[in-house]
Amino acid sequence: MDRDTNGYRNRLEEELTREQQSGKPIAAVIGLGSMGMGMAMSLLRQGWDVVGCDVSTDALGRLANAGGRTARTPAEAASGAGVVLCVVVNAAQTETVLFGEGGVFETIAPRSVFISSATMAPTDAKRLASRLAEKDVFYLDAPISGGAAKAADGNLTVMASGSPDAFEKAEVALQAIAGKVYRLGDAVGVGASVKMINQHLAGIHIAAACEAITLASKLGLDLPTVYEVITASAGNSWMFENRVPHILEGNYTPLSSVEIFVKDLGILQDMARAERYPAPIAAAALQMYLATSGAGMGRDDDASVARTYAALSGAVLPPVIAPGSKKED
Amino acid sequence: MDRDTNGYRNRLEEELTREQQSGKPIAAVIGLGSMGMGMAMSLLRQGWDVVGCDVSTDALGRLANAGGRTARTPAEAASGAGVVLCVVVNAAQTETVLFGEGGVFETIAPRSVFISSATMAPTDAKRLASRLAEKDVFYLDAPISGGAAKAADGNLTVMASGSPDAFEKAEVALQAIAGKVYRLGDAVGVGASVKMINQHLAGIHIAAACEAITLASKLGLDLPTVYEVITASAGNSWMFENRVPHILEGNYTPLSSVEIFVKDLGILQDMARAERYPAPIAAAALQMYLATSGAGMGRDDDASVARTYAALSGAVLPPVIAPGSKKED
Repeated sequence: MDRDTNGYRNRLEEELTREQQSGKPIAAVIGLGSMGMGMAMSLLRQGWDVVGCDVSTDALGRLANAGGRTARTPAEAASGAGVVLCVVVNAAQTETVLFGEGGVFETIAPRSVFISSATMAPTDAKRLASRLAEKDVFYLDAPISGGAAKAADGNLTVMASGSPDAFEKAEVALQAIAGKVYRLGDAVGVGASVKMINQHLAGIHIAAACEAITLASKLGLDLPTVYEVITASAGNSWMFENRVPHILEGNYTPLSSVEIFVKDLGILQDMARAERYPAPIAAAALQMYLATSGAGMGRDDDASVARTYAALSGAVLPPVIAPGSKKED
Repeated sequence: MDRDTNGYRNRLEEELTREQQSGKPIAAVIGLGSMGMGMAMSLLRQGWDVVGCDVSTDALGRLANAGGRTARTPAEAASGAGVVLCVVVNAAQTETVLFGEGGVFETIAPRSVFISSATMAPTDAKRLASRLAEKDVFYLDAPISGGAAKAADGNLTVMASGSPDAFEKAEVALQAIAGKVYRLGDAVGVGASVKMINQHLAGIHIAAACEAITLASKLGLDLPTVYEVITASAGNSWMFENRVPHILEGNYTPLSSVEIFVKDLGILQDMARAERYPAPIAAAALQMYLATSGAGMGRDDDASVARTYAALSGAVLPPVIAPGSKKED
């Protein structure tokens, strides 16, 4: 084959390691939802060679258009990467990404770092970390907070714990994606636990905001006025301030879906049960997310819990301009 | 009797109206707890002639030392006052202040204003207002928010509704006590309702803060770190930020007691039941205040709900440096 043909050059390039190709550090990002995509874009902007993997071809196309590369499997993505970020939904998906067929574990190099950002119980984080340690791969227990907009801006909050080696290998990538990194100690599981405490409160606060604002409507109050008063008073929460506008606008397009808190308060209840810790307020909130999902709004914005209160009480909320996901029925 | 004797002058002064005596507008303040005392002091600073009434002789002494006058009964306090502020605990106390023996209703002048600041159900506010209307007395439904420090500074938030006449008569006094007055409309009951929505959220948020921070301890997390992360994250609430430091310091000296939310979430549950409105999250929170009061901590700071979670779970909280009220047992 002539050295000047395309075929030759293509095969030659395949022989080179990816790192040699690009001259840039390689990060794999597994899971290109709104958070993972934002992280991938932030890494690209900071000069990383980013390889993404997702089941969505749309997401892969957007990454490729932005200058990233795509992989068909987590194993392919992780091959040659010094940093693998896993931004999937839960512990089960993380486990599949790592140890399923075509999983990261097949190709990830010793002394690279696996940054695990799914919200999960600390026991799950510990189990995954110990399996990766068999291959001398560092595990950073690194849940994230901040939402899609901050992910896109490279301004996430990361609640991280792990060994000094894990932090050292992850440091430059974390700088690219995060505005704030809480370094919570050496023990895997601490990051996961702190994130669960945040989700415990966030899940209650959203459901409580829905309970209170829908009651306000039932009492005949002017809801924008109630919003103005409460956000300036001791009854305010970050979530009340953030989510109630969705209800006032009648816009249930999911920024964060009901199913996220079905999952996270479910994990919380499992953790609390294992600890013999009663958490009745989180339990009550979980029932409202379950009812909202059961009524067909699981993929809608989590402020849809207000629609459940309205349905249960006859309260009238502002007209719906965007109902969220299309319903089957 | 000689006109130059003290006795004569005393009787002469008794003949003059109080307003003629002082040349100042007169405000009666019924209830000199931390909120009422702060309001009385603010009125004094702004040049009002203040007449206070309270069962506590200590409180009356402090008011007198600051230049206020004291009365033995609400009727005596209200006599000659253009503005009567009632800052007691609940609807039942307000009813006694107005219509009990020696009550305000005996002496209050037509076209004066009764400013009612106790947290109560809107139906109670409407009932009290309609009885005062029989005597052509204006009723301002004016719950307050902000705590003792803001009361002392004349910087309360007032959530007020009532007739234009009620607002007009109350206006100058409100300026003396409040940093912000929300004018919520003409209908008595709106102020009470908006305050109850605030208490609904505040009561849940305190109990949720206690549930989450005590779970964090059970999980072995460093609590000051958790506080730092949460207050910078989406799980934050005004109450988490304000109350958790009491737990971290082990200081349960009551700034606001457990009994306040036994009362306010009790009112909320009564209102919700009357409206056929399910409020399961508030109901769960109320159980925790009831348990905390039942265990003997009713007069302690409301962050004592964390001590109930600790007792129920074996979680260890920071050492108690101030247990709150003295226990009987």
